[in-house]
Amino acid sequence: MKIKNPFFKKKKNIKLSKILNILGLKSIKSDIEINNISNLNTATSKDISFINNLKYLDILKESKAKYIICNEAHAYKIKNFCYPIIVKDVLKTVYKITELFYPGSLDDAVDFSVIKPNLKKFKKIKFGQNVLIGENVKIGNDTIIGHNTIIESNSIIGSNCVIGNNVLIKYSVIANNVKILDGSIIGKKGFGFFPDRNKNIRYPHIGFVIIKENAEIGCNNTIDRGSLANTVIGKNTFIDNQVHIAHNVNIGNNCIITGQVGFAGSTKVGNNVYIGGQAGISGHLKIGNNVQIGGGSGVIKNISDNSKVMGYPAKDIRNFLKENK
Amino acid sequence: MKIKNPFFKKKKNIKLSKILNILGLKSIKSDIEINNISNLNTATSKDISFINNLKYLDILKESKAKYIICNEAHAYKIKNFCYPIIVKDVLKTVYKITELFYPGSLDDAVDFSVIKPNLKKFKKIKFGQNVLIGENVKIGNDTIIGHNTIIESNSIIGSNCVIGNNVLIKYSVIANNVKILDGSIIGKKGFGFFPDRNKNIRYPHIGFVIIKENAEIGCNNTIDRGSLANTVIGKNTFIDNQVHIAHNVNIGNNCIITGQVGFAGSTKVGNNVYIGGQAGISGHLKIGNNVQIGGGSGVIKNISDNSKVMGYPAKDIRNFLKENK
Amino acid sequence: MKIKNPFFKKKKNIKLSKILNILGLKSIKSDIEINNISNLNTATSKDISFINNLKYLDILKESKAKYIICNEAHAYKIKNFCYPIIVKDVLKTVYKITELFYPGSLDDAVDFSVIKPNLKKFKKIKFGQNVLIGENVKIGNDTIIGHNTIIESNSIIGSNCVIGNNVLIKYSVIANNVKILDGSIIGKKGFGFFPDRNKNIRYPHIGFVIIKENAEIGCNNTIDRGSLANTVIGKNTFIDNQVHIAHNVNIGNNCIITGQVGFAGSTKVGNNVYIGGQAGISGHLKIGNNVQIGGGSGVIKNISDNSKVMGYPAKDIRNFLKENK
Repeated sequence: MKIKNPFFKKKKNIKLSKILNILGLKSIKSDIEINNISNLNTATSKDISFINNLKYLDILKESKAKYIICNEAHAYKIKNFCYPIIVKDVLKTVYKITELFYPGSLDDAVDFSVIKPNLKKFKKIKFGQNVLIGENVKIGNDTIIGHNTIIESNSIIGSNCVIGNNVLIKYSVIANNVKILDGSIIGKKGFGFFPDRNKNIRYPHIGFVIIKENAEIGCNNTIDRGSLANTVIGKNTFIDNQVHIAHNVNIGNNCIITGQVGFAGSTKVGNNVYIGGQAGISGHLKIGNNVQIGGGSGVIKNISDNSKVMGYPAKDIRNFLKENK
Repeated sequence: MKIKNPFFKKKKNIKLSKILNILGLKSIKSDIEINNISNLNTATSKDISFINNLKYLDILKESKAKYIICNEAHAYKIKNFCYPIIVKDVLKTVYKITELFYPGSLDDAVDFSVIKPNLKKFKKIKFGQNVLIGENVKIGNDTIIGHNTIIESNSIIGSNCVIGNNVLIKYSVIANNVKILDGSIIGKKGFGFFPDRNKNIRYPHIGFVIIKENAEIGCNNTIDRGSLANTVIGKNTFIDNQVHIAHNVNIGNNCIITGQVGFAGSTKVGNNVYIGGQAGISGHLKIGNNVQIGGGSGVIKNISDNSKVMGYPAKDIRNFLKENK
Repeated sequence: MKIKNPFFKKKKNIKLSKILNILGLKSIKSDIEINNISNLNTATSKDISFINNLKYLDILKESKAKYIICNEAHAYKIKNFCYPIIVKDVLKTVYKITELFYPGSLDDAVDFSVIKPNLKKFKKIKFGQNVLIGENVKIGNDTIIGHNTIIESNSIIGSNCVIGNNVLIKYSVIANNVKILDGSIIGKKGFGFFPDRNKNIRYPHIGFVIIKENAEIGCNNTIDRGSLANTVIGKNTFIDNQVHIAHNVNIGNNCIITGQVGFAGSTKVGNNVYIGGQAGISGHLKIGNNVQIGGGSGVIKNISDNSKVMGYPAKDIRNFLKENK
């Protein structure tokens, strides 16, 4: 997990007894302090971690974490290697504890600290009218920022970038020579929550959006920031208009994503991938390198390197075209 | 119909002779005044109503309305129960008369009465910069309104709401604890008109948008207001980014609508419905409760309670997956 | 080609020796000046032209152009009729030379010359708040322009138009009585470039957007301007929300394009065409007159006049419905 980011400050340490108390669990008499919540493989001995599937048991055995959130069924399998914290819903608990370590991560709809840009600070940047810039924003030289655009606090924008009109950028780190065109919304929290009949429970989004060198983001796109991971757009990847990219999606370099494509959360796309208009990519998939996905496709399975697919659901494009002659 | 709404004021009474005259029909010598245009089952004895299909004949027999718009073929079937007003195109006539009772309902593209919010009136509301608020807007306490957002006249927003940046709200009634995120456009007139080779004839949209408690509307959504009915988003229903909801759509409670889904007009969706990304729902359908619709589906038929469907056109998800192994 | 447009000024003349030099070709000793780059059939004797396919050989024979860009394989076929300029990539070279004649056509993301509208100049126009108007913009009488809308330099807007809020208009010529609703982005450069592993090469977009009388463009649309041709929306054509129209698309009169439809580049659509929600139309197609395309369709072939199609890929609608009973 190891999130070092400019947006969400981690609380220093939280006593384990306090965490257990908040979770409604039987507390223990102890002064043990927990430093963070982390994945099994990145956790230090001071972090709390979690397991949701026994296929990660070997990783758990190697993990430095001592306190592991798990459900009852898994507890007896792991109790020889750690101190299990038994809960009903592992993922919900992980988000609860994340919110503990990163307070305020649910509460980010509007940045009221934005003001007109300080032209002394931003000497080599060209601003349009009615631009609003948050606290501690960094912008590289020779970048231009269009009219009515808002850049929220702590965002970082490289040099020689073009940010269009009516753009909203929050929780984003943008490299040099990137273009983000009019009306796009970058870095909003993702569509993540635990459904609940009276009032859904949102989960924290402490990840951010990373857009790498030479990328272009078209008009009226929405790119949500990550929940625990980051959302990443690779180098020299070009994205057309009205594309939606959900939280935690990771797109490689030199990809071409055409109009109205949509990505569900946490999917990983390789390099040199071409995706035709209106294709939809389900969540938690792995799309290989050099893949071509035909327009209108619905991708619901992983796709291996160098494949060409089309269809709903997507299949080898030769089969699709043969079946639809 | 019984439209009591804060947006469109009904003209008091209109003489029947004037209505007939405007419709180009043979007038009658009479001082009868008509109070409104209404559905058969809600009409009072002073309202004009209409019938477009004989399956509503029983309702007509019970209706209090005396003057009924109908086509020639239906006239002889109803003439024993009412005074038929025979026209060529019933629906077009209904819209013409609606426009008579609710003048200005076609002419609402820009509200020029909006001004900077009066902070004396809205003491407990936090406004971003460049916010514009129309006349007679009501906003509940502890609501926050983002930068560049416009709320047009007569709209009602509850307390503890979050309205993002660059949002446009018109003809909308929004309950407490609702979130409407950046770039969404709520309450624009729907895409309704009678095609005409030289100049299409728009029809009036005197309905509004109702968004109920705890709902969340994502970024860059478009939710059109109703024509004669209202467009409704139910309690605790969460909507992702780039979703389009056409006029008169009614979505129940606790639904989850993911990115880039589209609804054509007048469809009714039950409670606890989950709709995957990019699915499209045709108009005038009835989707039951607890329905799950897979991503990319094209729904062109009603769906009964507790169904799981996927495909284009959508079918039982087991069949879809079996056929596409 | 014959581009006379209010947006991009052609450089006067460029010496052929300079052009060859820039292309890295062996130059010739000559004072010949080239006036423009044009299609074979519109070129004057002073223009440079190009051939990419031998099916245009007869047009070349009739063309007035003497200097023709071609690849090596075609050179010997055309050398009797003109002076071939042999290059590796014809299209790329065409764009390079276009950029030579129309400099700045890649560099248009933000118009910093926009200012508050001069009310003396625009006496009969109603402006919302925070409107920004570029240099040399023409707007007809009785047009209204909503809040926060930007109209970039040299754009032309007819009389009696309604431009909504948060609209961005650039490189566009809009006829009388057109409506462009909130949040739409008209005239941005298209998604056109030559992929290159380190840094894609954008190509110039010197075309513009033409929207004809009585058309209506809904909310949050994106209509890109043409590269060498124009993007055209016909008379009385109505477009719903969240529609994406790529560069060079030409849509006829009296069409109805419903929500979330997408067009890839350079497709031509006839008159009286109806397209259902979320349908996608591939690039470089010809859709005839009086065509109906069902919602969710994926059109990947030309469609002849009076056809009704549906499906992905789209086929005769009777077959689609029969196969999917």
